[in-house]
Amino acid sequence: MLFVTLREDPAEAEIPSHKLLLRAGYIRRIGSGIYAYLPLMWRVLQKVSQIVREEMNAAGAQECLLPQLQPSELWKESGRWETYTKAEGIMFSLIDRQERELGLGPTHEEVITTVAKDMIRSYRQLPVNLYQIQTKFRDEIRPRFGLMRGREFIMKDAYSFNENEASLQKSYDAMDQAYRNIISRCGLAYRAVEADSGAIGGSASQEFMILAEAGEDEVLYTEDGKYAANVEKAVSLPKDVEQSPFTTYEKKETPDCNTIEKLCKFLECSSTNIVKNVLYEAVYDNGKILLVLVSIRGDQEINEVKLNNELVKVADQYQATTLLALTVLDENAQKKWTNKPLPMGYISPNLEDEYIASGEYIEGKFLRIVDKTVVDLENFVTGADEINYHIVGGNWNKDFKLPQLVCDIRTAMIGDRAIHDRSQTLASARGIEVGHIFQLGTKYSEAMGATFTDENGEEKPIVMGCYGVGVSRLAQAAVEQSYDKDGIIWPVAIAPYHVIIIVPNIKDKNQIEVAENLYNELNKIGIETMLDDRDERAGVKFKDADLIGIPYRVVTGRSLKAGKVEVVTRKSKESQEIEVTNLVETLHNWVEQAKVND
Amino acid sequence: MLFVTLREDPAEAEIPSHKLLLRAGYIRRIGSGIYAYLPLMWRVLQKVSQIVREEMNAAGAQECLLPQLQPSELWKESGRWETYTKAEGIMFSLIDRQERELGLGPTHEEVITTVAKDMIRSYRQLPVNLYQIQTKFRDEIRPRFGLMRGREFIMKDAYSFNENEASLQKSYDAMDQAYRNIISRCGLAYRAVEADSGAIGGSASQEFMILAEAGEDEVLYTEDGKYAANVEKAVSLPKDVEQSPFTTYEKKETPDCNTIEKLCKFLECSSTNIVKNVLYEAVYDNGKILLVLVSIRGDQEINEVKLNNELVKVADQYQATTLLALTVLDENAQKKWTNKPLPMGYISPNLEDEYIASGEYIEGKFLRIVDKTVVDLENFVTGADEINYHIVGGNWNKDFKLPQLVCDIRTAMIGDRAIHDRSQTLASARGIEVGHIFQLGTKYSEAMGATFTDENGEEKPIVMGCYGVGVSRLAQAAVEQSYDKDGIIWPVAIAPYHVIIIVPNIKDKNQIEVAENLYNELNKIGIETMLDDRDERAGVKFKDADLIGIPYRVVTGRSLKAGKVEVVTRKSKESQEIEVTNLVETLHNWVEQAKVND
Repeated sequence: MLFVTLREDPAEAEIPSHKLLLRAGYIRRIGSGIYAYLPLMWRVLQKVSQIVREEMNAAGAQECLLPQLQPSELWKESGRWETYTKAEGIMFSLIDRQERELGLGPTHEEVITTVAKDMIRSYRQLPVNLYQIQTKFRDEIRPRFGLMRGREFIMKDAYSFNENEASLQKSYDAMDQAYRNIISRCGLAYRAVEADSGAIGGSASQEFMILAEAGEDEVLYTEDGKYAANVEKAVSLPKDVEQSPFTTYEKKETPDCNTIEKLCKFLECSSTNIVKNVLYEAVYDNGKILLVLVSIRGDQEINEVKLNNELVKVADQYQATTLLALTVLDENAQKKWTNKPLPMGYISPNLEDEYIASGEYIEGKFLRIVDKTVVDLENFVTGADEINYHIVGGNWNKDFKLPQLVCDIRTAMIGDRAIHDRSQTLASARGIEVGHIFQLGTKYSEAMGATFTDENGEEKPIVMGCYGVGVSRLAQAAVEQSYDKDGIIWPVAIAPYHVIIIVPNIKDKNQIEVAENLYNELNKIGIETMLDDRDERAGVKFKDADLIGIPYRVVTGRSLKAGKVEVVTRKSKESQEIEVTNLVETLHNWVEQAKVND
Repeated sequence: MLFVTLREDPAEAEIPSHKLLLRAGYIRRIGSGIYAYLPLMWRVLQKVSQIVREEMNAAGAQECLLPQLQPSELWKESGRWETYTKAEGIMFSLIDRQERELGLGPTHEEVITTVAKDMIRSYRQLPVNLYQIQTKFRDEIRPRFGLMRGREFIMKDAYSFNENEASLQKSYDAMDQAYRNIISRCGLAYRAVEADSGAIGGSASQEFMILAEAGEDEVLYTEDGKYAANVEKAVSLPKDVEQSPFTTYEKKETPDCNTIEKLCKFLECSSTNIVKNVLYEAVYDNGKILLVLVSIRGDQEINEVKLNNELVKVADQYQATTLLALTVLDENAQKKWTNKPLPMGYISPNLEDEYIASGEYIEGKFLRIVDKTVVDLENFVTGADEINYHIVGGNWNKDFKLPQLVCDIRTAMIGDRAIHDRSQTLASARGIEVGHIFQLGTKYSEAMGATFTDENGEEKPIVMGCYGVGVSRLAQAAVEQSYDKDGIIWPVAIAPYHVIIIVPNIKDKNQIEVAENLYNELNKIGIETMLDDRDERAGVKFKDADLIGIPYRVVTGRSLKAGKVEVVTRKSKESQEIEVTNLVETLHNWVEQAKVND
């Protein structure tokens, strides 16, 4: 068996789970964001996959395997080729020897919709749910954290095909339950949260977050359990507005007040009295560029995911379908399009369109968007479109025209009140997204012509859902949720082995004999057992066993004279002596119980 | 369940297995050489994979998973980047967003050797054998025959790491046995044959061929079972030389004798009296080009695989490591390098180097290679280096200088006598290569610096072997070996389901009830069973069942009144009536027996 552990923390790793998987010999880095899964890791991945498979099959889904190489034509049909290969650039693409373009699948909506188009004709074939467990590819800008954000990773992706929205809701609910079962069976603590649908598209979507401090995602939730959402999607009530100290409209000199903090201090007002204005440049997929002027309350932050979604909603006004880039324009960046650049803090919501001097920008006008938080402000403070000056005591419809496009584009924050119940406030947790389910609707089936004939003989686009589990990410997330200073603590259900038998002294024939017998007996009844009979000091073996995180350690040591072996539970570090004759049965019971209770 | 069969043969398919897999709804084409494995196919692939896994584990190998994206640096270390991406061009390559080159793994010697270099230090860790079951990529010039020669396919590849050649031989023998077990357990007829090592390199290698008429490979073997080889590698004794009708050296006018056949007729001699000379251009990987003049007996054919190997052997004389291309030069093609082009039939083995007028060619000299068959010829016929003239009655060392490089570069043929026993003659069979095992030696470990410390403290390169099974190809080869006019006949061990229950009349409640009960009971004890309760005519269902090739068909039809069901064995088409109460036990026995006997 290839078994190599490291004493030192590897320099390349930033978070505990990544360090531990490298040190314990589970993975090796082959390139940026590219890892080899060594035998111990592969056993974990197979266990996670098997749990996923069982729950998917139980929910009536059927396993298949779709190609990783995907002809560009399919992605051009759905309209995602440019976004995925150029704009976001997350899809690897290549040219084959026939000079044809191919992409390496980051997801499979296009391929599966093509298969459905070919095979599904009638409502009598519906609903159908097809899934696969497969290596996916993403050319991440910053691959990091080991398997968490790799460029090559294992996913389970499923696609449901339904007659109508009601049937889709059933498939979606079944997947919701299957995902809860999967994560629970893996022995992990998680939270299901509302989520943004991103580039996949569609309406409702929900993420499954493994709770862990090093999680890349922020989850906002209420203690009553009735609300939980990814911060990208979360909504809430902002805190109350304080009374404005200004009562009349006035232009004030405000030198060096280019941040909200400096401005509040200088004017002696609350940040809730300020209308903050931020300029963005939005690039659409047809190459058109739009200047966007966003207004939000001074104490709030713009949620760029929400802003992005609003800009996609209006894309058809500009003959575009999606957004390729969204960038904040500081004074320097403004020089591209205006002769009169302004430091960001001094802009007003009514900055004149005449500021736009360059003809490259759509219509030569700002798209003005205001967040709901500024609509009811009175006597507010805002920029004067002139450096070192602000307006105080401003009011909509009197001093400023309220832009027509009013939306929720603010970032919900810890401490905000919940919308469903004002007495609940939002708490925050860090999570690792390991699952995401989407109601796609007819986005792909319409674009690609995947239709069926319904009961009345009418041809309709198939209603679709898609459902993903990050298998390799889940495996590492388990470590991130469960480790201590000595190493990994695997939940029993996904541990590479259940038991490790350590022979402290391999020159002692009795120790070896008992260990080998137990090893054979345990494996025979399905208790997956490793035997550490290396010629190493007992201390080294104990350290390695703790590091690789096998749930139960059996030591054929001194107590053997009394017919007993020492058994240490990795998680609790509890040690007990158990009769050799009872060991197999005891461990069998422990393992079965732990699979349920972990 | 997604279940769609086609009545018509799909136009894209050329061989029976490809047609059947498409018609029966096992696979769908997504692009050139790229297929989706639908649920029935996936079940077959999982069964083959599981048999492979069990045999590999039993042989002491450990499963892992290596990345598909492979940094070009690794392939440059081994020296294969140019050959694989440019010359042969079988590796897909791409540029990532950091402008780094990556290849899509067609094989994993480079990656696994890197892992071994990192993890293996001491002889005490050896031997080790790591394997994976994974999708591989090859940018085939002509993808065809469905899964037989796809651009994306599933392989099991294993790599052994050994201290020395003796240990490698043990690992190699264990893999040989594991491969025989795998193919036998899949229920297939095969032949293990000596093979050429090709671009993988190394010394000994052996292929496993599934016997089938549509096989792309030709196998030569003797009836005594002691010799079998791929025609690329096969050796034999050529037939005897006939007495030459010429006794004296003479230059004869031979108009329009540019083929062996015409020449024999004109001169009234045997083709065994002729020294045939063929010009090749060989391009080495450092860009150097060599002109090669090959002489072989007139009745024999040049084996370009063997010739290629000989040219690689002398590559270091030209500061090269491998060959990129080997092309025959006809009269027209000769114009690139000579002012005096000759029709191929009129060249002599001693064609003067002065013919080479262009300076692009290495040393301005021919590399002259003669096949063993011409060495002992006397009074032979050969070209006169002049159009419409041949030499007759020629002899080596008198009229012609025998070139120094003498090798076996002839193609063995059906009817040749065997080397191990002159009484045996070679017979020929067509086969589909599904497995290939190689003794690599230290080719990769030396190039990439993967060393270990031996018992005496000396640092040595690890001795390697590599072992591949084409999992998806094997699955299709099974169909190619086993089908009839009505469809596929799966061996029980790899059939997607063991049993299909057909309800002839779904309006008959008794039929449905009995069928559903049997379906549940059979599945409960592990007899994988499908239930066809579609609202279709019974005839359609019977045809579909035959087409998809499920081993046992159970029909809950008329005989139900007598408490019986009809059971038809797909392979023999035998039908019998079996008591409903005995059915589960009977089928259980049949399935278990068939797994052994198929």
